[in-house]
Amino acid sequence: MKNISSIKNQELEVALQKKIDLKTKPLGALGDLEHLAFKIGCIQNTENPKIANPTIVVFAGDHGIAKKGEVNPFPQEVTAQMVYNFVNGGAAINVFTKTNDINLKVVDAGVNHNFENNLNIVDAKVGFGTKNYQEESAMTIEQCQDAFSKAENIIHKTHSEGCNTIGFGEMGISNTSSASLLMAYFMNKPVTECVGSGTGLNSEGINKKSTILSDVYKKYKPQTPKDALSIFGGFEIAMLCGAILKAAELKMIIVIDGFIVSSALLVAQAINKNVLDYCIFAHNSNEQGHQKMLEFLNAKPLLSLGLRLGEGTGAALAIPLLKASVDFLNNMASFESAGVSNEIEKN
Amino acid sequence: MKNISSIKNQELEVALQKKIDLKTKPLGALGDLEHLAFKIGCIQNTENPKIANPTIVVFAGDHGIAKKGEVNPFPQEVTAQMVYNFVNGGAAINVFTKTNDINLKVVDAGVNHNFENNLNIVDAKVGFGTKNYQEESAMTIEQCQDAFSKAENIIHKTHSEGCNTIGFGEMGISNTSSASLLMAYFMNKPVTECVGSGTGLNSEGINKKSTILSDVYKKYKPQTPKDALSIFGGFEIAMLCGAILKAAELKMIIVIDGFIVSSALLVAQAINKNVLDYCIFAHNSNEQGHQKMLEFLNAKPLLSLGLRLGEGTGAALAIPLLKASVDFLNNMASFESAGVSNEIEKN
Repeated sequence: MKNISSIKNQELEVALQKKIDLKTKPLGALGDLEHLAFKIGCIQNTENPKIANPTIVVFAGDHGIAKKGEVNPFPQEVTAQMVYNFVNGGAAINVFTKTNDINLKVVDAGVNHNFENNLNIVDAKVGFGTKNYQEESAMTIEQCQDAFSKAENIIHKTHSEGCNTIGFGEMGISNTSSASLLMAYFMNKPVTECVGSGTGLNSEGINKKSTILSDVYKKYKPQTPKDALSIFGGFEIAMLCGAILKAAELKMIIVIDGFIVSSALLVAQAINKNVLDYCIFAHNSNEQGHQKMLEFLNAKPLLSLGLRLGEGTGAALAIPLLKASVDFLNNMASFESAGVSNEIEKN
Repeated sequence: MKNISSIKNQELEVALQKKIDLKTKPLGALGDLEHLAFKIGCIQNTENPKIANPTIVVFAGDHGIAKKGEVNPFPQEVTAQMVYNFVNGGAAINVFTKTNDINLKVVDAGVNHNFENNLNIVDAKVGFGTKNYQEESAMTIEQCQDAFSKAENIIHKTHSEGCNTIGFGEMGISNTSSASLLMAYFMNKPVTECVGSGTGLNSEGINKKSTILSDVYKKYKPQTPKDALSIFGGFEIAMLCGAILKAAELKMIIVIDGFIVSSALLVAQAINKNVLDYCIFAHNSNEQGHQKMLEFLNAKPLLSLGLRLGEGTGAALAIPLLKASVDFLNNMASFESAGVSNEIEKN
């Protein structure tokens, strides 16, 4: 966990910026794609970066609090039903990974269901759903550590298969509640500012969720990031956190999706700040807390499409922009190679 | 030109919205992609739309005013040099169309250069650059009509090749000046509000450009949209306008790029308002006037990446989102087909 190096390399940065500026276009005219190409070059420590075998890993887990149905309009069973939907290719993330030629892995991080062995699911079950943090810590520290280990193995395997660009997604009924609690803790904000509509609560539902989660928040005094993650998290969020840290250690490009994945990143960056060097922010979710998380992380997302689905859908939609940025860096002509006058440079 | 039908079809709209709402996701959770799928369905008059052979057509033309070098940091010769760059595959639009599997056509609308016959350029030259509107109308009404006819032929051919989704790009040193003048006329705004940095003017350069173009604007009293287009336009902008109108007549999905293409659309919608029914706005350009054009057209673009390059680059980058929206509409499971509980629907 401590082996995440900063991507700072002044010599490379100068070379990358020069390469970008000499492409056949006005200075800065490719906007955010120029920053993206620059960052990807820095992550891969090269002027000729590549996007190889981009992969989305979706972690699914259940939450104790969901059983009561007080904070979630969909019942807990929907987590398992949606995992079947992923396996059968019918979910949004299936469609978008196919559209954009991205690999997809679905991980059972801790769904409250026994899946058949012959399904295309990575079995990394930590438990059959978390406990309800209204009563006790969602998971033990040992379970949290187990989630980290299992996530690290999955990322290690994915990396060894030739993937250098990884996006994360999640599925877990009630997991916006965990994300709100983690946001409150790591950003030091009142819980009420961290709660949103999730999969579709109305304002009455949001008020109720706020009251319930504020009461939960007051019950605990977490002492460390992993402590907070164990109390408020979900198995899928703990695995996301471990996965993000491992991917950064392996110098992979990490594509951050929406509210839940960003809550896992809040934990990860509290453990090791350098992890942020490896993160590309895919989109600005419509879940209200996400905007504040992005500000806190000083992040400018690529897309702003009003998505609030999770599953890694925003990450899958952003990956073509990563490909485009790398392609322009590698394949666009320079003024010199194309024989185009560069009056701006002469000035 | 008058055969552009409105896409209104209440029965289809109800069916499309229902189809979108029953997909396995919270209501509205795919945000702008839902609106996009809905609009594409309406354009194609079907619940099962397709993106077929998406194509970007780049129109290149020269501008009389560029010869003086007062409004443009790059010299006029760069238009022809960039056309060679397109032909050789070295420009940003080459890269992005390749990344996203889009066809590319490059059209000589009126570059001040004789291109060799064996190059992969569509020859639709109206003239060797326009006249300088500081002295006289940029083109005659007959030349404007010629540009329309030639553009219509190109679009007709592209459509007959099986393309139903067309994006437009342009290249023409000084064409932001034409776009600013057209914006002032069609949006009834002071020229100073319509002028920006183009390919890279500093504030002194912008002030000079504003003064020059304000003087130009005062010289003329255009009576019709085509009149204004002939006086202030460029050959590439006139062809863009004709192409947009023809594509709408053929019920194609039209992907609108940045400031220049939008200025052509301002003219087109003044000729026939229904053209807007067929337009998808790719991105919000960093050229300052573009934001105001989008507001005037009541348009919400898909991307906001700080691009200001033209060539159709924004359109090329947005097309994967069109594909994703159509794919989710066609291929995502419904709650019923996936066996997922839809509590929201029951409420």
